[in-house]
Amino acid sequence: MTARLALGVDLGGTNARAALVDPATGQVVAAHRMPHAERTPGAVVATITAAVAEAARLAGVEAASLATAGVGVAGQCLGRSGMVLNAPNLGWRDVPLGELLAGALGHGVRIVNDLSAAAWGERRFGAARGVDDAALVFVGSGVGAGLILGARLHEGGRGVGGELGHIKVAPRGGTPRRCGCGEWGCLEAYAGGMNLAARLREEAADGKAGAVLAAAGGDPARLSASAVEAAYLLGDPYARELWAEVGELIGTASANLVTLLNPLRLVLGGGVLLGCENLERIVRAHVADRVLRAARRDFEVRRAELGDDAGVVGAALLGGRDDSHAQ
Amino acid sequence: MTARLALGVDLGGTNARAALVDPATGQVVAAHRMPHAERTPGAVVATITAAVAEAARLAGVEAASLATAGVGVAGQCLGRSGMVLNAPNLGWRDVPLGELLAGALGHGVRIVNDLSAAAWGERRFGAARGVDDAALVFVGSGVGAGLILGARLHEGGRGVGGELGHIKVAPRGGTPRRCGCGEWGCLEAYAGGMNLAARLREEAADGKAGAVLAAAGGDPARLSASAVEAAYLLGDPYARELWAEVGELIGTASANLVTLLNPLRLVLGGGVLLGCENLERIVRAHVADRVLRAARRDFEVRRAELGDDAGVVGAALLGGRDDSHAQ
Repeated sequence: MTARLALGVDLGGTNARAALVDPATGQVVAAHRMPHAERTPGAVVATITAAVAEAARLAGVEAASLATAGVGVAGQCLGRSGMVLNAPNLGWRDVPLGELLAGALGHGVRIVNDLSAAAWGERRFGAARGVDDAALVFVGSGVGAGLILGARLHEGGRGVGGELGHIKVAPRGGTPRRCGCGEWGCLEAYAGGMNLAARLREEAADGKAGAVLAAAGGDPARLSASAVEAAYLLGDPYARELWAEVGELIGTASANLVTLLNPLRLVLGGGVLLGCENLERIVRAHVADRVLRAARRDFEVRRAELGDDAGVVGAALLGGRDDSHAQ
Repeated sequence: MTARLALGVDLGGTNARAALVDPATGQVVAAHRMPHAERTPGAVVATITAAVAEAARLAGVEAASLATAGVGVAGQCLGRSGMVLNAPNLGWRDVPLGELLAGALGHGVRIVNDLSAAAWGERRFGAARGVDDAALVFVGSGVGAGLILGARLHEGGRGVGGELGHIKVAPRGGTPRRCGCGEWGCLEAYAGGMNLAARLREEAADGKAGAVLAAAGGDPARLSASAVEAAYLLGDPYARELWAEVGELIGTASANLVTLLNPLRLVLGGGVLLGCENLERIVRAHVADRVLRAARRDFEVRRAELGDDAGVVGAALLGGRDDSHAQ
C-alpha cells in the first residue's frame, strides 16, 4: 500500500506545477506542470485542478486521498484566510484562492508565499534542517526571502513578510533605479535577474557592456546574469564593477537581515545567486564581514539544497500545519 | 487584600530599578532604584535583591509573594536559559543571571533584552496594544529594536534578535564611522546619542558645529542631540544637514525593517528620537516614503507611550510567560 501523500503546488505566472510529496521523506513521488489557458482565477483553478489530477494519476492515487494540500504563490498571501492579496505575475488582487481551490479539489488548501514555502521545505528537508531560526535569501528573476522564526513561518501582519527585494538600498552616487514594483531604489531593482537584464540592455546600448554583450552572443535579448558572470571570468572590468556593486548590495542586505533577526542559518537560493559563482563569493564575503559579531555564534551560510522542489515540498508540508502565523 | 503583583527589573550599567507591577493594568505600584556598588555578577545580584526588597516594602507586600519576575538587560540574553551572553555596559559575558537571581530571590526569573522587554510592555499596555506583529525602534544613547512577531517575542537563535543598531549603513561619501561595538558603519555609530555626542565634539573641535556648541552653552561636554535640535530650530545649516543624514539613516532602516517583517505597528522610542521633534519628523517622512506599498496596509507609526516604565512592565509580564522563543 502507498503511504498518504501530500500535495504541493507551485503557482507561477504562466503555469502551475502540482507535486505529490511523501511527507516523511520530502521526496516528490510524481509531478505535473500545466500552462494556464488564461490568468483569471477561474482558469487558474482549472489548471491547478487538472495538474493535480494528472500528478495523482501518475502516482496511482486518488486526488481525494491526499493528506494535505498547499499552494505557493509568487505574491502576498494572507495565510490562514487563503486570500491572495497581490500577485503581480498573475495580475491578481484579493483573490480568495484557498476558497476557490477547496471547492474544486474537495479539501482544504493552505495558500502561502512561494519563498515562504521554499524556506519551509529547506528547513524540513534541506539546507536549514534542524534549526528553529533560518532565513532563505533568494535571488532569481526577482529577489525575496522566506523567514522561519522561532520554528514558525513568519508571514507578517498582512502576509507581506520577507519582502527583502523591496527594501530600499542606495548605492553611492547616481539616482536610484526603478523597480518592477513601481518604487525606486529597491534591492530587486539592482539584483533581480529581470531588472538586471533591463539594465544590461540599457548600458549595452550606451556601449558600456561590450564584453557582457559578446558573452551573450551579441544578442541584447540574451543579456543576463550568466553573461555577466562569463565576462567576469574573462576579467572584464565592467562585469567586475557590476558584480562588486550587486554583490555588496545583496551581501549587506543579507547581513543586516541576520543582525536584525539572528537566524542560525542563512540559505542562499535562486538562479542568479547560485548560477554565478563569483557573485555568490562576493555576497558571502560581505555577509562574513558585516554580520554583527554576536550574531555569528553558531551561524552558517549554506546553498539551498532542494532546488525547484523546495516550494512544492514546503507547500505540501505547510498544508497540514498551523504553526505559522498571520493575523 | 492586594492582588498579586509581578516584579520587573531594569538592569542598567550603573543601577538597577525594581518595580512592582499590577499585571492586570500595567500600573507600577511601587519602584525603587539602587546603584551598583560594583559590576561583578555577585554585587549586581545583591543590588537587585536590595532594590526588590525596598520596592516590596514600599508596596506593603512580601517579596516572596510576587507572581512572576523578569529582568530586562541591555545586552544579549539567551532567553529561556537565563544566560546573559554579552552586556557591554556591565562588562559581562556568559553570566548565568537567571540562576543567580533565582537563588537570591527564591523564585524563577525571566531574563530578557531590555528593548524586547519594552516592546512587550508597549504591546500589552502601550502604543502596540492589540496587534500581533509590532516593532519598537529605540534611539537613545544606543539604538536597537524589540520585535513582536506572530504575538511572540522574537529573540533570535542566540538572543541577539533586534540588533537594529548594528546593521551596517553607508551614508554616501566618506569612510564609515566606528561604533562603540568595535565594528564599522553601524547605524548606532551615526544615530546613537553616545556616538553622536562624540562626533559633535570632533566636529566642534574642527570648527564645524559652532551653532550646536553655542546651544550646548559652549561646553563640549554638553554636546548632545538636544543641542543639535536647538540649533536646527534656529536654522543652523550644520544641524539641518546632520538631521537630514541621521533622519534618513534611521528612517530607511526602520522602513526596511517594516518591509522585511510586515508589522502593523512601528513604535518609536528613546530620548534622542522622542526628544528631537525635527529628527522624528524626518524619520517619519522617510518611513512613509520607503515602506513597500503593500506593507502599508493597516500599518501605523506611533510614539511609545510607557516611557521608562515600558521595560519593567514588559519584563514583569514576560516573567510568567513562555510564548517567546529562543533555542
